[in-house]
Amino acid sequence: MSRKVTIRDVANEAKVSIATVSRVLNNKCAVRPKTRNTILQAVEKLGYKYENRVTEIPEPGMTVPEEGTAQLFYHKVMEESNIIIVNIPTMSNPFYSKIIDGIHASAEMHSLSVVFTSIDINEKNVDAFIRLTDHLKAIGLIVLNSFSYSTLSILTSHLPVVQCCEYYDNPSASYVGINDYTATETAINYLLSMGRKKISLVNGPLEFRYAQNRLAAYQSVMDSANIEVPASWIIQLPELNHDLAFTSIVQVLSSPNPPDCFFAVSDSLAAAAIKAAQYCNLRVPSDILVIGFDNTEISQLATPSITTIKQPRYQLGYLACELLVEKIADPHSEIKRVKLPTELIIRESTTSERISME
Amino acid sequence: MSRKVTIRDVANEAKVSIATVSRVLNNKCAVRPKTRNTILQAVEKLGYKYENRVTEIPEPGMTVPEEGTAQLFYHKVMEESNIIIVNIPTMSNPFYSKIIDGIHASAEMHSLSVVFTSIDINEKNVDAFIRLTDHLKAIGLIVLNSFSYSTLSILTSHLPVVQCCEYYDNPSASYVGINDYTATETAINYLLSMGRKKISLVNGPLEFRYAQNRLAAYQSVMDSANIEVPASWIIQLPELNHDLAFTSIVQVLSSPNPPDCFFAVSDSLAAAAIKAAQYCNLRVPSDILVIGFDNTEISQLATPSITTIKQPRYQLGYLACELLVEKIADPHSEIKRVKLPTELIIRESTTSERISME
Repeated sequence: MSRKVTIRDVANEAKVSIATVSRVLNNKCAVRPKTRNTILQAVEKLGYKYENRVTEIPEPGMTVPEEGTAQLFYHKVMEESNIIIVNIPTMSNPFYSKIIDGIHASAEMHSLSVVFTSIDINEKNVDAFIRLTDHLKAIGLIVLNSFSYSTLSILTSHLPVVQCCEYYDNPSASYVGINDYTATETAINYLLSMGRKKISLVNGPLEFRYAQNRLAAYQSVMDSANIEVPASWIIQLPELNHDLAFTSIVQVLSSPNPPDCFFAVSDSLAAAAIKAAQYCNLRVPSDILVIGFDNTEISQLATPSITTIKQPRYQLGYLACELLVEKIADPHSEIKRVKLPTELIIRESTTSERISME
Repeated sequence: MSRKVTIRDVANEAKVSIATVSRVLNNKCAVRPKTRNTILQAVEKLGYKYENRVTEIPEPGMTVPEEGTAQLFYHKVMEESNIIIVNIPTMSNPFYSKIIDGIHASAEMHSLSVVFTSIDINEKNVDAFIRLTDHLKAIGLIVLNSFSYSTLSILTSHLPVVQCCEYYDNPSASYVGINDYTATETAINYLLSMGRKKISLVNGPLEFRYAQNRLAAYQSVMDSANIEVPASWIIQLPELNHDLAFTSIVQVLSSPNPPDCFFAVSDSLAAAAIKAAQYCNLRVPSDILVIGFDNTEISQLATPSITTIKQPRYQLGYLACELLVEKIADPHSEIKRVKLPTELIIRESTTSERISME
């Protein structure tokens, strides 16, 4: 084989990330002696030539390195691969489509190739997932799904990672998301302002942090308003499934103490609430008010159209990719924690005024 | 580098497919002398050892090779990579979600890793796309998008390809799809059987073969029924965009000779037709009948729910991946042309009888 040995080969041989190799070769940052030795042995074994890379690596502690320096490192990495991976929990949720458009827009600008995987990453399969990222020669990863803190740490020790939508505070992975707590407060307070008190929450699986935060905000606002919430009003779905939501909502509407509002954590679930109300011969919005979440196409297409919380999906994806590029360009760059604003969009499902198509 | 030289390295060096290398090394099939020489030079240059592979390659002309032989070849290929690529025109169309579920189900059974790309492959970028498949060490490709016949041929000369939904008759790429022509005939004949004649077609971009076939079938049925179709009844959209459809449908409904039925090539466009009718103070289904296509979630969630053509999406994806595995296992296997049946699902948008949720 006449192929030139790259920094990636060294990283693979030593079973560490490219960033760690570059730190050792530049003798700048704290790296454990054992790891350092393994890397230097890999360099020797493979005959990797790295002298000309020294000037390309930013100084340690330079949280805002000179543009040129980071760019140079970025282009060196890019010579070896331009692949970034985006991992999505499911391909069937229309919520992700505009996020992906935003990621593509940023990636194209930086000449990155985007490939998608749809793997439920967990502690059992994280090693296999990392082998996949190696196999694909990925230089960065955007994760949109939920997993344990320790799984995230394993990923970040291997390659640059940015979290999008679902996130933890983590010292090595930036994130872009929204504030689910305040968005939920806005929705519930709006329903209270309409004079309604019997508000039901249609929630997604609690392993997602958005679901935990929206439940907490719902309970807190209801508590502050001195409204006692029967257990049946909190509809906790095991998955974002329209049929399950329909059945559960029909159930609670037929119970002795039915709610008169539904706050659903997705527009598709809100559409199921409208269908369930119609099934029970109740009218939306005169009998029942419904609010969704995300402002996906379905919130406009439903009849009545659905009041919803708009997430800036395109911007979420765009910014996630921009933060990833920043981290690839400069492994020492500070991590960023970004929360983008949401917006309550009022449509027919909560107001009897006729609203025209946007 | 101590990495073992693989058949893929030889293929890359000689710029041919793995299948071609295996044919030459087994001296079994017709391969042009020039290509043969290039491959043998690559084998020598890289020092590739292939003796033990001879027995693993199926005999030429064995269109149905022994199971064991093909499996052995498959497992050899799999040792080098288990990546297949699925290329999707857009991540924002809910139509694809169940197809992807079907692909995942088959891939998991065969221990394949699936990665997705969303690239509009054309003659200009097909070389770059092929470099990407090489970089990812992909052993097969499922394409869901539309491109020229010559682009397809370039892809098939490089790696095993299966077409799903959109397809050409091609000597080296199997396909799985539906019969768009007969599905459209069924829909239009159903509207005619309801006593309606003023049927409008809301069509997708004509670079897609489904759009060409549905247009042809619509015109043919209308012609056979001696119905003169004003140009305005054929709403030809440049993209599957809900807002564009809404505006165009409001336009034709306000024209001097408006239609009283819409056959839309997707459920989302059918939902736009319902919204447009409501905007014009027309009722669905008493004034206007609407039929969609695909049986996506939106056809159930819309009010009224939407009569639609059900595509067997899960099966389309599952079978596409099965055919790809067959081709990877045995490069000489015959290509298959599979058309799966569709089904007209009648809901509220074409009948005033109340229909309960499925």
